Amino acid sequence: MSDPIFERIAIVGAGLIGSSIARAATAYGAAGSVSLYDASDDVRARAEGLDLGNVTATLADAVQDADCVILCVPVGALAPVAKAAVAHMKPGAILTDVGSVKKQAAEALISADNGAVLIIPGHPIAGTEQSGPEAGFPTLFKGAWHILTPQDGKDAVYADAVQKLTDFWTALGAKVETMDPARHDRVLAITSHLPHLIAFNIVSTAFDMETVEEGEVVKFSAGGFRDFTRIAASDPVMWRDVFLNNKEAVLECLGRFSEDLAALQRAIRWGDGDFLMQEFTRARTIRKAVIDAGQDSGAVNFGRNQNGVKDGG
Amino acid sequence: MSDPIFERIAIVGAGLIGSSIARAATAYGAAGSVSLYDASDDVRARAEGLDLGNVTATLADAVQDADCVILCVPVGALAPVAKAAVAHMKPGAILTDVGSVKKQAAEALISADNGAVLIIPGHPIAGTEQSGPEAGFPTLFKGAWHILTPQDGKDAVYADAVQKLTDFWTALGAKVETMDPARHDRVLAITSHLPHLIAFNIVSTAFDMETVEEGEVVKFSAGGFRDFTRIAASDPVMWRDVFLNNKEAVLECLGRFSEDLAALQRAIRWGDGDFLMQEFTRARTIRKAVIDAGQDSGAVNFGRNQNGVKDGG
Ligand SMILES: NC(=O)c1ccc[n+]([C@@H]2O[C@H](COP(=O)([O-])OP(=O)(O)OC[C@H]3O[C@@H](n4cnc5c(N)ncnc54)[C@H](OP(=O)(O)O)[C@@H]3O)[C@@H](O)[C@H]2O)c1
Ligand SMILES: NC(=O)c1ccc[n+]([C@@H]2O[C@H](COP(=O)([O-])OP(=O)(O)OC[C@H]3O[C@@H](n4cnc5c(N)ncnc54)[C@H](OP(=O)(O)O)[C@@H]3O)[C@@H](O)[C@H]2O)c1
Repeated sequence: MSDPIFERIAIVGAGLIGSSIARAATAYGAAGSVSLYDASDDVRARAEGLDLGNVTATLADAVQDADCVILCVPVGALAPVAKAAVAHMKPGAILTDVGSVKKQAAEALISADNGAVLIIPGHPIAGTEQSGPEAGFPTLFKGAWHILTPQDGKDAVYADAVQKLTDFWTALGAKVETMDPARHDRVLAITSHLPHLIAFNIVSTAFDMETVEEGEVVKFSAGGFRDFTRIAASDPVMWRDVFLNNKEAVLECLGRFSEDLAALQRAIRWGDGDFLMQEFTRARTIRKAVIDAGQDSGAVNFGRNQNGVKDGG
Repeated sequence: MSDPIFERIAIVGAGLIGSSIARAATAYGAAGSVSLYDASDDVRARAEGLDLGNVTATLADAVQDADCVILCVPVGALAPVAKAAVAHMKPGAILTDVGSVKKQAAEALISADNGAVLIIPGHPIAGTEQSGPEAGFPTLFKGAWHILTPQDGKDAVYADAVQKLTDFWTALGAKVETMDPARHDRVLAITSHLPHLIAFNIVSTAFDMETVEEGEVVKFSAGGFRDFTRIAASDPVMWRDVFLNNKEAVLECLGRFSEDLAALQRAIRWGDGDFLMQEFTRARTIRKAVIDAGQDSGAVNFGRNQNGVKDGG
């Protein structure tokens, strides 16, 4: 194995993403050693049993010797955690995060800047519907995009740090891309935040129908509904923070979504089959593009049929 | 192998569902022989090459000797096809269908009634996002629900026919349930029709955003969007017919969906994190119910991670 990218890394927040980074960094030799801290006693105790690295009793213990500190907490917790971390970090160390929103996350991190650390926000486009330290696995980032939103107008030392962080994520199997935080938030609003909001919403709607029973919704969910329940099973705290912190871009997408839905609704009401055909036809080409880009499995039903679980219309 | 349930079956419409029934009926010995007809010359030619059964040149040839005729065409095509089939069917034979909407489908079939055949509408809650004769496979119905909507006030001969059709679908691996057509349409509006409409709509919305490029949407679709593209890849003709023929129930669900979405939108605009938490939290319990009911795979990301395809928030 070649030399690790970082001698020592520290992970704050030992949930799905934090524990996956710990596992991957060790498995792929990207870090010489890993220390972890989590605010929750329970999570720390569980993390100790999972052999993820050196679980410390305090945040200071985790971050003080680290060359790179990775904050893996919900976006709403980033500002105080960044402040606490920076107070104990050694000069020249890198501070990054994995928050799903980047404008607010970058502001939270930068507000903690003491001039001695190098702040480079980031976001892996990788995850699952589960959370907690047990949910993580080392291959989570393999083949996934990792977006860095480095600060503008920085020096050569900063540029070197961005390169090192890029090398780290590359070692974990990710494809790294840099982007402006505002652009990141607009892109993710439509590719991730709106889909999650819609999924949460349809699940609520289904369970508030008086004319259909809950048991029936579950029983006949193979008609399409169950795919939405997967997305809607994601961590509530994480998603609350995403929506509170990417308000503008999400509301913009939501406005357009509702407008487009009103047009479909009108076509259904007036029996305009041509309009429905036109709208439904172009969606097929987009599925093909997603599969061709390697962003999804081309197997029907995500390959679910092999497990005897069926889909239907 | 025990005796077949039907000596001879005929399938009209040799697409995903029709060809899957043909394959399953032969594979599980549920029919002694299978004949198939499709209006499309091209589909008939392709079906011949697939060894699905006896592909006939006319609808009359397919149905005249059949003990059970299964119409597997889009719902909008059912009325004329049922009329044509009944004109050539032998007395006492069963006429059924697989249409995703049942009130209109039942009316279409019953309007063809000549008093000599037994009409029992049906709908398998099984399918994939693909279509055409090549897309079918014999295990499609294994473990899936099949809903029959028998007519009320019929005699013992009719009841026997319902039992035989139940045995046929059971032999194909399905769990059979009977239901009133209007109830079927209300249940499926929320578990299938609305989810598909929403999926079609979000795909349209994403590709009409001027602020985000198509390539970016595809590239970062692992954030959630790609699951919607799968559902939205379903056959446009089939879905146009579903929406045109289940207007009332779909519009009712859609109205509630929009109302609920407006509440989430308001909570985002005003930063009401408690409301968001409450809504997002209950969705988790519903995912668990779907998995416990055997209606989906409990594997994270539908088990997609094994293929190196990743998900993310
Ligand atoms: N899940 C995804 O699909 C995904 C994908 C990409 C990025 N992300 C981002 O990754 C971050 C973490 O998400 P996750 O899915 O890993 O969530 P998770 O499994 O719930 O883990 C988050 C962990 O952070 C802990 N924590 C909360 N506040 C803290 C604080 N002040 N100090 C230290 N630890 C604290 C939590 O403890 P408690 O349980 O006690 O609160 C929890 O153990 C979020 O910013 C999210 O936006 C998630
Ligand atoms: N796909 C699902 O997930 C699913 C699930 C449950 C139930 N269903 C129901 O199953 C039925 C068929 O759907 P599918 O997915 O199998 O569609 P499909 O793969 O497109 O097959 C339908 C076939 O019917 C043919 N056809 C159309 N009009 C006809 C006519 N007048 N006479 C004879 N053949 C005709 C079509 O030919 P052309 O291609 O030339 O039009 C096509 O080959 C629909 O009623 C649908 O609601 C579908």
